[in-house]
Amino acid sequence: MKRTAFFISDGTGITAEGIGQSLLAQFENIEFVRITIPYIDSVEKARNAVERINKAAEGDDGKPIIFDTLVNSDVREEIAKANAFKVDVFGTFLAPLEAALDTKSTYKVGKSHSINKNTGAYEKRIEAVNYALDNDDGARIRMYDEADIIITGVSRSGKTPTCLYLALQYGLKAANYPITEEDINDQKIPAPLKPFKSKIFGLTIDPERLAVIRNERKPNSRYSSIKQCNYEVEEVELMYRRERIPYLNTTDYSVEEIATRVMVETGVERRVK
Amino acid sequence: MKRTAFFISDGTGITAEGIGQSLLAQFENIEFVRITIPYIDSVEKARNAVERINKAAEGDDGKPIIFDTLVNSDVREEIAKANAFKVDVFGTFLAPLEAALDTKSTYKVGKSHSINKNTGAYEKRIEAVNYALDNDDGARIRMYDEADIIITGVSRSGKTPTCLYLALQYGLKAANYPITEEDINDQKIPAPLKPFKSKIFGLTIDPERLAVIRNERKPNSRYSSIKQCNYEVEEVELMYRRERIPYLNTTDYSVEEIATRVMVETGVERRVK
Repeated sequence: MKRTAFFISDGTGITAEGIGQSLLAQFENIEFVRITIPYIDSVEKARNAVERINKAAEGDDGKPIIFDTLVNSDVREEIAKANAFKVDVFGTFLAPLEAALDTKSTYKVGKSHSINKNTGAYEKRIEAVNYALDNDDGARIRMYDEADIIITGVSRSGKTPTCLYLALQYGLKAANYPITEEDINDQKIPAPLKPFKSKIFGLTIDPERLAVIRNERKPNSRYSSIKQCNYEVEEVELMYRRERIPYLNTTDYSVEEIATRVMVETGVERRVK
Repeated sequence: MKRTAFFISDGTGITAEGIGQSLLAQFENIEFVRITIPYIDSVEKARNAVERINKAAEGDDGKPIIFDTLVNSDVREEIAKANAFKVDVFGTFLAPLEAALDTKSTYKVGKSHSINKNTGAYEKRIEAVNYALDNDDGARIRMYDEADIIITGVSRSGKTPTCLYLALQYGLKAANYPITEEDINDQKIPAPLKPFKSKIFGLTIDPERLAVIRNERKPNSRYSSIKQCNYEVEEVELMYRRERIPYLNTTDYSVEEIATRVMVETGVERRVK
């Protein structure tokens, strides 16, 4: 079974993709070709999109599915002319929301990921990204007093992407400190982290998976051997438990999930909404 | 007018937030308190959430609004008991989608941002993040032959966050090369970029805004003076036009928008779906 799914938006398409992906994930036996068409902000662009949608259906085992977050009703009506099944978020929910809020909506286009200068969200996120870069890998500047959170773990357990995601998505200042073999031999919380214990969150990972990831960087090394990975993971988990550092096994999680779970576990609040 | 909005999910809550934010953005005259409750994957957790929701309404100018992407119908029904207006994505769209696709859904929880080991998406994204970090700021390793795209622009025009977002969200290998004053004096495409001209995308920014951003890093310096910002921006835009490098003014855009617009303009396709 093959079907084509379109995510159509007057903005980036990120929200339309999010809705579409979570709904399509419920249909595992269908193979979806996924196409995002962002910045559809005029009837003419919508007309071109409709052509593309109608063409895509050829060779499929059924009509295409459209997920759209178009605000402008003229554009939305144009898209509705496609020979497709349409999941229409604004068309479905805006009128009931207007009733619930007892207010007319302003029908502004492309708002969800557009910049809002008043909140300073852009600056906060950029500042947080710079902070994450400056405080990556424990080796550089250590501005741990400024950190919202300090992520720790052995090499390749997912610290850097987690910190960057926390910065980009939530504006959080996330530092990261890699647990080295020396730290492990000490069997204690690393000295530079000691004064900031309340901010520390540990990552761990299944040794087999760690070995696979490390092998990609340094194939057939002691560093990537299953023996070494077993040793490091075991010791770091012991240290977490002994020092009562909250920690998470990242093996089965995406970057988004690690980041949001870290926030839930620590109670750290996002800095941008 | 003050109302409380809840984004509730059995996963990270990112999709529920996306839907909610884009709909709420249409009501500019209402001040929303926004609360995300992720990982609601049991009836008991739902019951606790309902208590929180009902409590939140006290002092508001109306019922709370719930945006949920809960898959499990027991959990969804529990949430529906809250004294709130509910925008129910799965409840609304799953049955019609089943009909359109002529298939029963599998009702799996927390799928949209969970890891999918078969696609290797996680590895691709992590590899892309490592690539972006290794090839940040032009100063380090230059593996431009591997790049999907090379972002260029003057200091503080938004290159690094754009590259990181392209890596994290789309698995793209995005390098970045800062245009220095020497490059500007040469009035030509910088030598290291020359062999990769087809991969280059330029960022620019309004000089006034650039001066504000630079002032945060180095207050009252020549670097952050409006005169210097004017000069650099003018020259870099001239260079873009002379060398026919596609470029984007980032002043009014969020990181997500810059990243997706870069993809639209260049036609570079994402590496993870």
